[in-house]
Order: sequence, then C-alpha cells, then structure tokens
Amino acid sequence: MHSFRELSKIFEEKFSGRHFPLKPETLYDPAEYFLKFGGKRIRPVMCLMGNELVDEIVPDCYFVATAIELFHNFTLIHDDIMDKAPLRRGVETVHTKFGEPAALLSGDVMLVLAYEYLNKISEDRLKKVLQLFNKTAKEVCEGQQLDMNFEKKQKVSFDEYMHMIELKTSVLLAASLQLGALLGGAGAGNQQHIYEFGKNLGIAFQLQDDYLDAFGDPEKFGKLVGGDIVANKKTFLSIHTSEVASAQQLNELSIAGTNDKVEKTLKLYKECNVDQWAKELKEKYLQAALMHLDKIAVLSSRKKPLLELAEYLIHRQA
Amino acid sequence: MHSFRELSKIFEEKFSGRHFPLKPETLYDPAEYFLKFGGKRIRPVMCLMGNELVDEIVPDCYFVATAIELFHNFTLIHDDIMDKAPLRRGVETVHTKFGEPAALLSGDVMLVLAYEYLNKISEDRLKKVLQLFNKTAKEVCEGQQLDMNFEKKQKVSFDEYMHMIELKTSVLLAASLQLGALLGGAGAGNQQHIYEFGKNLGIAFQLQDDYLDAFGDPEKFGKLVGGDIVANKKTFLSIHTSEVASAQQLNELSIAGTNDKVEKTLKLYKECNVDQWAKELKEKYLQAALMHLDKIAVLSSRKKPLLELAEYLIHRQA
Repeated sequence: MHSFRELSKIFEEKFSGRHFPLKPETLYDPAEYFLKFGGKRIRPVMCLMGNELVDEIVPDCYFVATAIELFHNFTLIHDDIMDKAPLRRGVETVHTKFGEPAALLSGDVMLVLAYEYLNKISEDRLKKVLQLFNKTAKEVCEGQQLDMNFEKKQKVSFDEYMHMIELKTSVLLAASLQLGALLGGAGAGNQQHIYEFGKNLGIAFQLQDDYLDAFGDPEKFGKLVGGDIVANKKTFLSIHTSEVASAQQLNELSIAGTNDKVEKTLKLYKECNVDQWAKELKEKYLQAALMHLDKIAVLSSRKKPLLELAEYLIHRQA
Repeated sequence: MHSFRELSKIFEEKFSGRHFPLKPETLYDPAEYFLKFGGKRIRPVMCLMGNELVDEIVPDCYFVATAIELFHNFTLIHDDIMDKAPLRRGVETVHTKFGEPAALLSGDVMLVLAYEYLNKISEDRLKKVLQLFNKTAKEVCEGQQLDMNFEKKQKVSFDEYMHMIELKTSVLLAASLQLGALLGGAGAGNQQHIYEFGKNLGIAFQLQDDYLDAFGDPEKFGKLVGGDIVANKKTFLSIHTSEVASAQQLNELSIAGTNDKVEKTLKLYKECNVDQWAKELKEKYLQAALMHLDKIAVLSSRKKPLLELAEYLIHRQA
C-alpha cells in the first residue's frame, strides 16, 4: 500500500521518458514539450490507487494510467487552443509556442497514443477498459462544449453548471479510480462505489478550487486571489450569487469598473454568505464521497490512502 | 461477392443514420453536418472488399468500416481547420459554419466515436484491429504534418513527397483493406499482400489525381483544370518538374503572373514530358499493386471486384 505522494513518485518516474518517435519533430516535439510541463498527475495516480484499493498493482495499470494522463493532456492542449490561452501555469501553451495547426495535430496524435497504451493491456480486460474510457472521453468533450456555451450565455443555472462540472472534471477522476479498480479485479458493486466516490470528490474539489480563488489566503494560495473574477469566469460562487442576490445588488456589480470589480464582487459574495454556502456544499459532496468509500467491500485499512487524498484535496489551501 | 458500387450502396444505407446523441447540439450538430456531406466512402467500402476477398462479410466488418469512415472524416474536419479552408466540395467547412472551437471539438469526439465502433467487435479480434488502426492513425497524422511542413519549404524532393503521400493517403487505404481481410480470417501473408496492394494503389490513385488536375479533359473533370497550380500546391507533377527542369525554365515560371501561371506551368510540364512521366509512374505503381493482388492465395474470382476497382480508380477521368 502506498500513499498518493509515493504513487506520484513511482508514476512520474515511469512517465518521464519520451513517449513519441523523434520524427517528424514538428509533430512530436510540441507533444513532448507539453508533457514536460509536469502537473500533479492526479488522474493516473488515482488509477493506481483504485487498483491498490483491491489488490497489488498489476502491470497493466501503468499502461492505463499513462493513457489517462495522455488523454488529459490532449484535452488541455486542445482546450488551450479553443480558449486562446497564451499561458498555462505561467508557461507558453503549445499553440503559442508552435502555432495552432501543430498544436491541434499534436493533440490528435496524443489521443491516438493514449489508445496505443490502452491496447497494451491483457486481452480479457481490454473491452471493458475501452468501454469506460470511451464513454468518459465523450463526456469530457461534452463538458468542454457546455463550458464554451456558458461563456456566451448571460444566465446559467446552478443545475446546468453542476452538470457541466460533472462532465468536464468529475467523470475523469471517477473513471480513473474505476479503471484501476477494474484492473485490480473489483466486482461491479465496488466499481460503482469507487466511481461515485470519485465523482462526488471531483465536485468537492472544484468547489474548493472556486472557493480558494475568492477566499484563499494570498500567502498560501500562490496565485492572485480573484483571478476568476477578473477573467469573468463562471464559478460555483458566481452562479450561486446570481441566483440569490437581489436585482439591485447584481445591477450594482454589473457597473463596477475594472479597478474595483474584485473588491465589489467579494463584498457581494460575503453579503450573500457565498463563502459559508460553498463550504457547506463542499462538505456535503465530501460526505457523499466518503459514504461511497465506506460501502466498498474491502478492509478499511485499504481505504486509508484514498481517505487521506480526499482530505488533502478538499482542505488544501493552494 | 459484390462490386464496389453494390458495397457502396449497402454501406451508405447503414451509415446514413444519426451517429451522435442529440445533446449538446453545439457539439454534435457540427459532427452530423459534416457526415451528411457524403463523399465516395472509398475507405469503408475497401474494408468490406478486403473482407469479401476471403469470405462472406462478417457483421463486425461494418463496425470497423464505420470506424474507418469516422476516422477519415475526423481528419478532414481538422485538416480544414489547419488549412483554413472555407469550402470542401463547394460546401462550407465545419469551422466556417460553426466556428473553430466547435469544429475542433466535434472532430475530437468523432475520433472517440470511431473507437467506440471498434470496441463493438468480438473480443478475439479487437487487439489486432486496434493495433493496425492506431499505427495507421499515427501515420496519417505524420503525413498531415509533413504536408504542412512542405508548404513552407521551397524545395521538396521526390522521395520526401512520396513518403508524405504514403503516410497521408496510402496507408489508410491499405489498412482499410487489411482490416477487412483480417476480420474475414485472412492469414498474415495474405494480409501483407492486400496491404501492399492498397498502398501501391493509393500512390497510383494520387498520381491520377495530380495528373487530372493538370491534364484532365475539362468536360469530364468536373472541376477547374489547373486548380493545384493556382493554389500553388505541391504535386507529383510540380515536384518532378522542379527536379528535371533547367534553372532558366524554373526562373521563367517563377516570374509568371497570375493570369498566365496555369498556361505557362502546363507548357513547362509538356516540355519536361511530365504527362508521360506521370502516366508511366502511375502504371508502375498499378502493376506493383496488381502483383501483390496476384500473390494473394484465394480463388481469382474473388479478386475480380478489387481488380475492377483498381482499373476504375486509376483510369477515371474525374
């Protein structure tokens, strides 16, 4: 049994080599460039943890974990093109550095490579793994599309927003855990519970993300507080506020200038008790996640790393 | 046994329904829009023909043929974005009609759907089918990248150009045939020969494409003769000319105005005997293809539809 941190190290070592052929460089260098960005590798490690929940890690699990991380990076490269984002984590995005055509095609070939890794696993698990992987991949695309739709919409309801977050963020975390459990030999019931654990945790995770952006401790947060507000990004906090604030309050906010927008938005959030609301909602989803974890029929000692991960993801300050 | 035309009809009927969920419309409508463009469906029908070369068509072959057609359409949608092409076959491209982000994402989800179709086939053939499909998909991406590289290059050698055409065009035709044969139960030797038949035929096909653009009969061709020349596109003809023409001839051409560019280029082609050269090279690749077809260990009557297809593709006037 390993902690998240230990598995991260193990995965990073296996993942850090080159994944693509050397030529044509104009196709594969942009792909390798992006993979070198790093990142927390949360999804592949969750796949390994899903496996270890039920048994020792099987070699196939590293192939699937790699495929998941490649898929995730493919979505990031393409999302950055769609969002016209110049930077990611302070570094030039692929299309900024190599141009849009090369970024688009590098993303495509990265998705194909993900399927190449999936196809390395033993034949008797392949169909089930592909089934869940494909379903999830489609959902993530749907989530990204909804997110883009919402940017153009004046009014998005809480339910619509929640549905988008489920698709764009939660299902991949959930599927990563389930794929690991499936490879470890978990039965259908346990697989369903680990999936639901991941899905609920994903929502709580996103709630914490949105919360920190507005109410994080500037010294611990690492990024500028209020970034989402400046970027006019819809978040759980902004969606909820638009549903509970009065017309007058919303009107006052809409005429705020660039200078005082963050300040005025945070003030309105406080007036509407959005901080408290977000904390409670996050706790609700965390409890739902833990309830599913509880129901998984394995020794509780096997659940410890996942419990620790949940606590960390939900109460992190950065 | 069926002719290409008969199989086209059978495939079109199966393929013509809706492939994607209804919602979100902004994701799936662009994908359905493009699939309704039609096209000759050459690749999926070749997959069916590859199967019928060895046996009655197995139901799985329709899933793989569908996956191939979806993959091909995914590449066209993304190629059109990369090439900034406003039209395809006279109709608005996906990104022109729906915007680049929607086109990009619709292409992505179309590739995922291709894998969903592949995953419908029987477990015992899945790994081999995926192996060939993935290898081919990577090669097609490489071909597209090389094609984009060549646009920016002043000088591209015949060998470089041939390699690009193999990757961008030939391997998918070859793999379509082989996948069908594989599903029909062909052995490794026969699979190799059908693949090589397709690969050589693909090159001959491209040579005929390039030939028709310059020397086609305007009444039969259907498109404006000289389109490649106007678009400054590298073709077998232009590449060969740049290798055999004198510096003076090339220099004269380079100062041709927009008005007389087509005329002057065609004149140079004739002076260099490029038309005769292209015909002979096409015949050489056709013969190589037929040699591989000949070596396939099945009754010659089974090869008849492929023989007819080769004759048609290579000697067509439009």
